[in-house]
Parts: sequence; C-alpha cells; structure tokens
Amino acid sequence: MTNLTIAVTQMTCTWDRPANIAQAETLVRDAAGQGAQLILLQELFETPYFCTEQNADHLALAAPYEGNPLITHFAALAAELNVVMPISFFECTPRQFFNSMAMIDADGTVLGLYRKTHIPDGPGYQEKFYFTPGDTGFRVWKTAVGKVGVGICWDQWFPEAARSMALMGADVLLYPTAIGSEPQDPTIQTKAHWQRTMQGHAAANMSVVAASNRIGTEHVGHRQRYYGGSFISDCTGGLLTEMDDRPGIALATVDLSAQARARSAWGLFRDRRPEHYKI
Amino acid sequence: MTNLTIAVTQMTCTWDRPANIAQAETLVRDAAGQGAQLILLQELFETPYFCTEQNADHLALAAPYEGNPLITHFAALAAELNVVMPISFFECTPRQFFNSMAMIDADGTVLGLYRKTHIPDGPGYQEKFYFTPGDTGFRVWKTAVGKVGVGICWDQWFPEAARSMALMGADVLLYPTAIGSEPQDPTIQTKAHWQRTMQGHAAANMSVVAASNRIGTEHVGHRQRYYGGSFISDCTGGLLTEMDDRPGIALATVDLSAQARARSAWGLFRDRRPEHYKI
Repeated sequence: MTNLTIAVTQMTCTWDRPANIAQAETLVRDAAGQGAQLILLQELFETPYFCTEQNADHLALAAPYEGNPLITHFAALAAELNVVMPISFFECTPRQFFNSMAMIDADGTVLGLYRKTHIPDGPGYQEKFYFTPGDTGFRVWKTAVGKVGVGICWDQWFPEAARSMALMGADVLLYPTAIGSEPQDPTIQTKAHWQRTMQGHAAANMSVVAASNRIGTEHVGHRQRYYGGSFISDCTGGLLTEMDDRPGIALATVDLSAQARARSAWGLFRDRRPEHYKI
Repeated sequence: MTNLTIAVTQMTCTWDRPANIAQAETLVRDAAGQGAQLILLQELFETPYFCTEQNADHLALAAPYEGNPLITHFAALAAELNVVMPISFFECTPRQFFNSMAMIDADGTVLGLYRKTHIPDGPGYQEKFYFTPGDTGFRVWKTAVGKVGVGICWDQWFPEAARSMALMGADVLLYPTAIGSEPQDPTIQTKAHWQRTMQGHAAANMSVVAASNRIGTEHVGHRQRYYGGSFISDCTGGLLTEMDDRPGIALATVDLSAQARARSAWGLFRDRRPEHYKI
C-alpha cells in the first residue's frame, strides 16, 4: 500500500490580501494537522476573482514568479508542515500576464511553474482580457508524495489536458478553480456538469482527481457567487468526499499502488491508437 | 427546437440466432411505436458473447459486410419504421475479422461501416484473439435525425474516441456494448465506472450519449453475467434514463438545437490548444 491523504479546501476572498493569505494558511495547517500530505488551495486566492470585469487596474495585482512573496510564504509553510502544495498566483512577465501555478514540494522546494493552457471568456469570466494562454505546456511533477499534474480551472473541462498529464505519468490530477454563477442567465447551473466532467477524467485516466473551488459572493463589477463543491474523486470517478458551499477542508486517502495496479490491469493505455485520434 | 427521441435497448442472447434477431426486432418495433427516431441495439446481439473464450470455432459466426443478411434485415425494418439504427455485427473479410457496425438511415440506406478501433483483452473479454483493430477510423454519419457517431464497447472508455467524433461534428454519440462480470475477481464491479466514463464524454463534448448493454448470464467457456444499465445522458453528463438488468427499452428526448447552442456558448471547442496535447 502507498497511501496518500489529499485535502481540498475552500474559502471566501476579500480585497484584504494578508487576511486571505492568513485564512489559506489556517486551512493548510488544519489539513496537515488531520494528516493531509497533499493540499490544494483554490485558484487566485490572494484576491477576489477580478476577471468578472475588464479593468486594467487589476493588472497591477500580478507579480513575477521569481522572488514571488506568496510562493515564498507557502514554500516555508510546506517545509514546516512537510506537505506538497501547488500555489495559484497571478503572474506577470515584462510584457505578459499569466494565470499560473507554482508547485511546492514537501521540503519547500519550488519545483516549477505551470501557466494555464486554456483561457475562458464569457460573461463573468473575462479571462482573455488578462491572461495570455499558457506557454509552458502541461506539467507533471515528481513530488515527495507521487507524480502530480495540475490543471487550472478552465483546463478542467478538457479531456486532452487530463489525458496529457496522465500520459506524462501523473498519478494525481489537481484542479484549483473559481467557478460559480453565470451572470447572463441565473438559470444556468454548472456545478453538476463541472463535477461530472472531472469525474470523467478520473474514470478515463484511472487517476484520483481533486478540485478546490472558491466560495462566497463577490462584487467586482457585478455580483457573482462561487459554489464551492470542492471534491476528491477516486480512480473510477466515484466521489470520495464533496463539500457544500461552506468554508473548510475535506480529506480523502487513496492507495496509489492499488490505483496503479488497477490502471495497468484494465489495459486502457495499452490499447490506445493515436494514429486514429483527431486533435 | 430540434427534438430527437432516442431509444436504448437491452436483451439476453442465446445460440438461437433467428430468435435473437426476432427479439431485437420486437424491441425496435416497441421503441418506434413509442416515438423513437434513433434506436440503439446492443453489441453482437446475433449470438452469445463468444469472446469469453479463445475458440476458433466461433470465427465461423462472422459474415461479410456486403450482402450481410442481418444488415439487410434491419435496413428493411428501418425503412418500414422510419428510424435510424446502427447494427453491430461480426465481420469477416478474406483474411481478417472485425467487430463492426453498419449505420442504417431512416430510409433503409446503409450509410457505411465502422470497425471497432480499440480491442480489449482480459479475462472474460478475449477480443484480441478474434478481432483485428479497426482500420476505418472513427466515423460520423449525417443521418435523417442528425450527425451520429458510434463507438463500439471498449471504444467507450477512450476520451480520444468521443472527442474525435465530436470534432468530426457528431451531435449524438452511441455505444453498443457487452460488459458485465470480471471472472478473475467477482469483487470487481465496473458498472458505475463504465457509466461515469461515458457521462464524462457527454459532459466534456456537450453531446448526448447513449449506451445499450447486454443482459443475462451466458455460459461460453465459463459463466459470465452482463449487467445492462443501458442509459441516455444529456449534454452535461446527467442521466436522462437508466435501465436495470431487465430486458426492454428506455427512451429520452433531447433538443439538439438547444444542445448546439449550449455547446457553442460554453466555448470549449473555441479554446482547444492542440499544440500542447500529448497523443
């Protein structure tokens, strides 16, 4: 047995950045205290989700990857608690902005950077105004607790992203995210659709999948509610734990050796036929 | 609105081929009588599922695509009832055998042939002994009721198959199948995993998905039970109808115009980035 305990988390965010960071740290300490070895914080938790509107003032929220104080803070925390953590952040380079993630290993080493590949654009989610589509390609990191791939929010809708990370060896797929109401039509309820899409990635790739989603109602340009529903799915797509719309953490333990055996025995990767796949 | 009523079906099969065909015809007539315009029969319903064992005698069950009496029979029935039907059959060519499907349009025209791309192999499912992996590639047919893509059984586990058909324009994905118990380990229960994988294809491609699965216990080499569970999922992966392990039909009506609008508005196909996809 190679047991891994994963924690998902969810929280509200305000314009008080130190308070958001402190709240995230509290969630991480709670999760580690309950035995979590791999802890997932939600997307862009330093601030409210500013992509509800197109406002160039929000570009000032970005910071470079190198020497980023948010990453430095959580790298020290990861080392203290001996946990693996991807940290979502708003990245700037000299001429571009990315929706990015730094992977931090359990000893506090920053293993590298992933820039969100798929950028959404629609009412309430004006990300194409801010973010250049990622240029890193998908990344899978060999961490102290296993091979972990991370997609960011909109990436979670793409079977190609999950499959690419699975083919690169990921045993765990993580998705930090910020999704909620659709301001153009309050009758559109995406939560079940969102969960089932990722449960499908778990089932088809036979890998555990975890998603941490934002909660609360924010007012950036307009009122938008984030539904939480953070979850961990086993390698058949079955939900191991699922949160409602309240703040906190949820944990699940999976046996990565059993998962690897089941995946190999089932033979899906043996039988792929890339020559017939449309991309 | 462009409403389409789809029927899934399931039945037991014996070595009495005319009886199996008669039973399938009864299911089709029942479904058409209840308003179905697109009717899905299960995989290889002419006979028991012979791939439980490696026995060259079963190769004699195959028949060519051209002039195939099973296809001719159901083409006449499709024309009589004005329904679209894919028909699964065991195909032979001069030197090879395929697990194949003929698509029949509502006027009885045979639109073409698809040969199962992904061939499984494991206890109870010895398909690599019989079937050459398909050489047709995925197919999507423009039928009287919309653009329909069909995967056969093991194909249903591959997100690449569903995505390929979706990119070729399929509005409906169909999967005739034969899946049940795992003789090597009765504790392995695949039904929920199987359903969730296809619900994921529906959710990620925003297309209705329907699967018709075999039922009953057969003794070909050993005892194997098929669990049915035929279902129709909407374009968010939600189940519209789901059968248990009894024979019969189940219908659901979807609005293909609404589905097309939802798919376009959500923007997933807009935001694909094939340059980053591992195949």
